[in-house]
Amino acid sequence: MLPLLSLLLLLAASPAAALVQDFCVADLKSADTPAGYPCKSVTSVTVEDFAFAGLGAPGNTTNIIKAAVTPAFVGQFPGFNGLGLSMARLDLALGGVIPLHTHPAASEVLFVAQGTICAGFISSGANKVYLKSLNRGEIMVFPQGLLHFQFNSGKGPALGFVAFSSHNPGLQITDFALFANDLPSEVVEKVTFLDDAQVKKLKGVLGGSG
Amino acid sequence: MLPLLSLLLLLAASPAAALVQDFCVADLKSADTPAGYPCKSVTSVTVEDFAFAGLGAPGNTTNIIKAAVTPAFVGQFPGFNGLGLSMARLDLALGGVIPLHTHPAASEVLFVAQGTICAGFISSGANKVYLKSLNRGEIMVFPQGLLHFQFNSGKGPALGFVAFSSHNPGLQITDFALFANDLPSEVVEKVTFLDDAQVKKLKGVLGGSG
Amino acid sequence: MLPLLSLLLLLAASPAAALVQDFCVADLKSADTPAGYPCKSVTSVTVEDFAFAGLGAPGNTTNIIKAAVTPAFVGQFPGFNGLGLSMARLDLALGGVIPLHTHPAASEVLFVAQGTICAGFISSGANKVYLKSLNRGEIMVFPQGLLHFQFNSGKGPALGFVAFSSHNPGLQITDFALFANDLPSEVVEKVTFLDDAQVKKLKGVLGGSG
Amino acid sequence: MLPLLSLLLLLAASPAAALVQDFCVADLKSADTPAGYPCKSVTSVTVEDFAFAGLGAPGNTTNIIKAAVTPAFVGQFPGFNGLGLSMARLDLALGGVIPLHTHPAASEVLFVAQGTICAGFISSGANKVYLKSLNRGEIMVFPQGLLHFQFNSGKGPALGFVAFSSHNPGLQITDFALFANDLPSEVVEKVTFLDDAQVKKLKGVLGGSG
Amino acid sequence: MLPLLSLLLLLAASPAAALVQDFCVADLKSADTPAGYPCKSVTSVTVEDFAFAGLGAPGNTTNIIKAAVTPAFVGQFPGFNGLGLSMARLDLALGGVIPLHTHPAASEVLFVAQGTICAGFISSGANKVYLKSLNRGEIMVFPQGLLHFQFNSGKGPALGFVAFSSHNPGLQITDFALFANDLPSEVVEKVTFLDDAQVKKLKGVLGGSG
Amino acid sequence: MLPLLSLLLLLAASPAAALVQDFCVADLKSADTPAGYPCKSVTSVTVEDFAFAGLGAPGNTTNIIKAAVTPAFVGQFPGFNGLGLSMARLDLALGGVIPLHTHPAASEVLFVAQGTICAGFISSGANKVYLKSLNRGEIMVFPQGLLHFQFNSGKGPALGFVAFSSHNPGLQITDFALFANDLPSEVVEKVTFLDDAQVKKLKGVLGGSG
Repeated sequence: MLPLLSLLLLLAASPAAALVQDFCVADLKSADTPAGYPCKSVTSVTVEDFAFAGLGAPGNTTNIIKAAVTPAFVGQFPGFNGLGLSMARLDLALGGVIPLHTHPAASEVLFVAQGTICAGFISSGANKVYLKSLNRGEIMVFPQGLLHFQFNSGKGPALGFVAFSSHNPGLQITDFALFANDLPSEVVEKVTFLDDAQVKKLKGVLGGSG
Repeated sequence: MLPLLSLLLLLAASPAAALVQDFCVADLKSADTPAGYPCKSVTSVTVEDFAFAGLGAPGNTTNIIKAAVTPAFVGQFPGFNGLGLSMARLDLALGGVIPLHTHPAASEVLFVAQGTICAGFISSGANKVYLKSLNRGEIMVFPQGLLHFQFNSGKGPALGFVAFSSHNPGLQITDFALFANDLPSEVVEKVTFLDDAQVKKLKGVLGGSG
Repeated sequence: MLPLLSLLLLLAASPAAALVQDFCVADLKSADTPAGYPCKSVTSVTVEDFAFAGLGAPGNTTNIIKAAVTPAFVGQFPGFNGLGLSMARLDLALGGVIPLHTHPAASEVLFVAQGTICAGFISSGANKVYLKSLNRGEIMVFPQGLLHFQFNSGKGPALGFVAFSSHNPGLQITDFALFANDLPSEVVEKVTFLDDAQVKKLKGVLGGSG
Repeated sequence: MLPLLSLLLLLAASPAAALVQDFCVADLKSADTPAGYPCKSVTSVTVEDFAFAGLGAPGNTTNIIKAAVTPAFVGQFPGFNGLGLSMARLDLALGGVIPLHTHPAASEVLFVAQGTICAGFISSGANKVYLKSLNRGEIMVFPQGLLHFQFNSGKGPALGFVAFSSHNPGLQITDFALFANDLPSEVVEKVTFLDDAQVKKLKGVLGGSG
Repeated sequence: MLPLLSLLLLLAASPAAALVQDFCVADLKSADTPAGYPCKSVTSVTVEDFAFAGLGAPGNTTNIIKAAVTPAFVGQFPGFNGLGLSMARLDLALGGVIPLHTHPAASEVLFVAQGTICAGFISSGANKVYLKSLNRGEIMVFPQGLLHFQFNSGKGPALGFVAFSSHNPGLQITDFALFANDLPSEVVEKVTFLDDAQVKKLKGVLGGSG
Repeated sequence: MLPLLSLLLLLAASPAAALVQDFCVADLKSADTPAGYPCKSVTSVTVEDFAFAGLGAPGNTTNIIKAAVTPAFVGQFPGFNGLGLSMARLDLALGGVIPLHTHPAASEVLFVAQGTICAGFISSGANKVYLKSLNRGEIMVFPQGLLHFQFNSGKGPALGFVAFSSHNPGLQITDFALFANDLPSEVVEKVTFLDDAQVKKLKGVLGGSG
């Protein structure tokens, strides 16, 4: 019954056939493109390229926000390249907060694995607030590009996992964008209406200058 | 200082402004389109449209596969509509199996929340197997459209959560496609090389005819 | 030589041919979908559906920001529907400011038609500021979803026109998202590290409550 | 062994499950959207929605171009809706010509089923001509939106089949666009540099006015 | 009248103008990306890059399936790169079968060029079978990612041509995925419910191990 | 309060984090891909990569069309790479004309900055003409791939700016495609029905041969 193999062999015999891809594990050493990284050679891909253990350990929440974000974006997990997915782990100690932020390139879904997380987002047109306290097992979706936040609203630590609709969702924390760089205080004040003292105070906390 | 409001009002005053969408919660009673369901009127949308509790409860694993898949696709959770994301919960009792299947329209990432899950997928070009046993906290990605499976390889129950890169990933279980309908046994045998007895046995189990 | 017409007639004779679309002018009275509005009947479409005069007149800059944004998004100009484009006009009186904002669903290019406009955006990963003063005739691009702003840095009025890579780019002004709604002050403070007095002051200015 | 059915039933029991789509057969009576037509109810879909016999019969080539184009776009074959594919049949009698045209929304591949067809396209940047005579069994690809043409360069009738990368590729025949409508001759001449006599002659042939 | 050339020259004079692409013929020696291969230099592209003769000759059907699939995917025909199209030729001797398979990344349309081909696909949600015998000139569409098959149901040889909605549709033959590799028989049986004897018999036929 | 920085540092510490992109400024020296050019290293990107002054100066209209097109496509302005946007400047002296053309890969919006411009496009299905005279401040949209043109219909010079829905819209001027290359006159005549004298006259003007 060997002849059945002939179809397989026919397809495999073409020198170009090895080039055909079902996936495109990122070769992070090559330059990125608008659609993602060039693919690692399929002959060197193993199952380890599709698995990632980095979300298994808690992030360090001994910081001012009492929280940690551990990303599994394409930069950390090259197996996501081009597949329209990525993940992150959110550890929130008692009182922990993931500050106001956006993901410029993805929608997000949050799954609460432990504790109680209050999450919210704000619509752009009407500036309407969508705010909800989520218990273990509940999920909430945050539409692409909208400002949102999460904070621990329970009585113990909380743990969440988030998935994104892009291998590279981006993460723009509003406070860091305003106060953790050299954007002149005068400009920050002009475009936010914040007071000078407020701006300088937060620049101090976040390491900004100007 | 009221005049600042004028910008807000300018934008809001346009009769069309209320039409602008940041999201598109599915109106499941309208006909679907290739890009998703028409949107529910934004004025009737509340935060409850963006949250879903259905993944919080274990599925019933008292069945032959000792497993349950609980979907949160757009049909169950209309808030996912058009956002390129969906989720599901996998409950695997001791010995439980999610049979061989594909998602025609999405890539998938599995997060192991409890126990040990052995997962695998098969590439199309070279029919190579990517198989790995995953412990709690590990993730694995399954590229779009490829055959894959998961089974409990641990000594107790296992729990997984999966996210997809589409609001409607589809789920085609190979056995159901072959044995749970009226596809004539003769045709099944012709296109799979399975023996007649094998086909009829599984049609019997799965409720198929022909 | 009439027979040449037969090809034309062949194509036109099909009852379905009239359904084929080159464009899809929005029927704003129908429910939106993730890909845009349903199309107005092609038989009722005229050239007026593809032209728009609303950007010809200056916006009213007699307000606290000394500026006005006049949008030509799909809600104002239905001809843009599904074409991946929209526009807006920016009028900036002396000292005028377009406050910090994002467009969740589009990249933007600014063309300076008059005066001098200082524009900037902030990258997400490294929080790097890209800031530049633009003279008449210069353009600057703002990548999708990133925080950006524009202000008049010249000695007279300034005028800009912007184009977007979506018929519905969205516009989320950070201050309005935080201070022009009922998001509780306590939550604003928790997720932004702003002081209570600052938050309440701006809620007062922008009409927020809570 | 009935319990295996429980998974199937679980999925099927959800009232929303019937809404989940693997395909979206066009309901041509509903208004189109930028992504295609709303879907016909899945319960009324049969295999006949996915098959089409209209390309089996030769088109009538008794006309001035000695050729016929028989389309199977979404308007003729609703099963293509949203699937990124369509087809057409080209009949070319001896000396037959498919005049210069573009498909605004799709790339095309031509398969020569009978005879010899000379086909060509012109690049936009460098205006370079890519011209080739194709025999039976040969294929040629025409990149999206570029001007191209086909003519019978053999000694008998020719037959071709083309596939497109969109359910609705569009077909803009340059001569029809210029000479088969009421675009004033003066305008045609201004934008094409054609002589007045030439324009009026072709308007006469093609039924144009003005 | 030479000045008209000035526009042409203006556009061509820019050193970057030569970089602008209408097409992107694959440079198969470079690493693939999620959107396709890097482009061959446009100056070395000729019409031969857009034409392909490999579908003109019958495949060898002297094998157990009495059939042959001859692909013209991007790996064989680099001109398809990035254009959302590819093709293949199906030769089916009397009794020939294209076994159950999916294309993970594309929808497919089949055109019957000779003989009679019985084709079918199975929906995912409801496991419904769409099965039809197609005569010469008929077409049938197979939605993306769904299991399908074709077999010769006529009294002589049959010939089909298929087009796909991707330059790289992939081809996953269910039997090869299960029985032509080292996926342990125990795992195959667990995820398919096939009997051990059946699995080992087919592994023997298809060259699998484990 | 330094600990707040820990989140920032956590994200920045990952060696892969620097690879994460918010934008992808084109490295024009690398080979293009179907989705755009590979990205310039983010560490070498400055604000100058996002700004462009080339549209500030009038094009030279001392030519037969009394007009000039100054492009800011990705080839001229690498900051547009992958962002779905580009621009061009249209200078139209009295009587100036932008000849009949298409953009194979983008829709276009025209903004009239000075004078009066008559613009039109032609639909493909019905060959209907959409023609309108636009005054300063008016905009008009031209759907992707359709033939269109613009000419100065006022009493003085006119100036327009156009934006496109792609970083690389392409520009195919019908006359250049037909008369400015070596496409044999016989073929031009066969596929356009133009007279031999007309074709040879325009080939003479535009530098074509054959």
